[in-house]
Amino acid sequence: MSLTVQDFKQVMVIRKDLDLGCGKIAAQVAHASLGAYLVTMRERREWVESWSRSGSKKIVARVNSQEELFQLVTEAQKMGIPYFVVSDAGLTQVPPNTVTCAGFGPGPEELIDRITGRLRLL
Amino acid sequence: MSLTVQDFKQVMVIRKDLDLGCGKIAAQVAHASLGAYLVTMRERREWVESWSRSGSKKIVARVNSQEELFQLVTEAQKMGIPYFVVSDAGLTQVPPNTVTCAGFGPGPEELIDRITGRLRLL
Repeated sequence: MSLTVQDFKQVMVIRKDLDLGCGKIAAQVAHASLGAYLVTMRERREWVESWSRSGSKKIVARVNSQEELFQLVTEAQKMGIPYFVVSDAGLTQVPPNTVTCAGFGPGPEELIDRITGRLRLL
Repeated sequence: MSLTVQDFKQVMVIRKDLDLGCGKIAAQVAHASLGAYLVTMRERREWVESWSRSGSKKIVARVNSQEELFQLVTEAQKMGIPYFVVSDAGLTQVPPNTVTCAGFGPGPEELIDRITGRLRLL
């Protein structure tokens, strides 16, 4: 076991192909963040606590399709990383139940990066 | 007491004068949303539960100065509305400890609107 101090972060990934406005993106990212937070509290409470103590780092990245987003979710499932997928009610800007965004963690940076580390930031 | 069903919402207010990028705004809004959620869980758990049951409505609005943001916070304090103020560590885009954003509630829509109802959406 390494004695290196681990960094923790939470990453939200938004679909850029939907061309959402900035306020809409912010609301979707907030949904994803809170959703993933609550899932992680249930499944990996110690990760949330370490993350909160170390400044609650949040990153927003982007993909260009639902397919790409679902690939990330599939990887998270395989790796046991808590996640939350946001689908929008569709009252504005997108059709009902459009998947817009997902949140991963918070979790150890090194682990989360295996899923989202290659993505472009928003 | 009225028998009308109450709507609930959470409102995040971002400083538009800082000219933050869209990804930065989304991260600040997510901080404000989670922070205000946790404060409200402590102070008004029943509001969070009603909000969660009714779809977790989140709105993002904007102000043009720190002064305007602080006025909203002062009003929230007077009215007993849970809130959370975000200041950024300032590693990117803004000087350290810049106040960027605040979250209000979730709470009854009619009450939250008394603070944020006149603001422009982001």
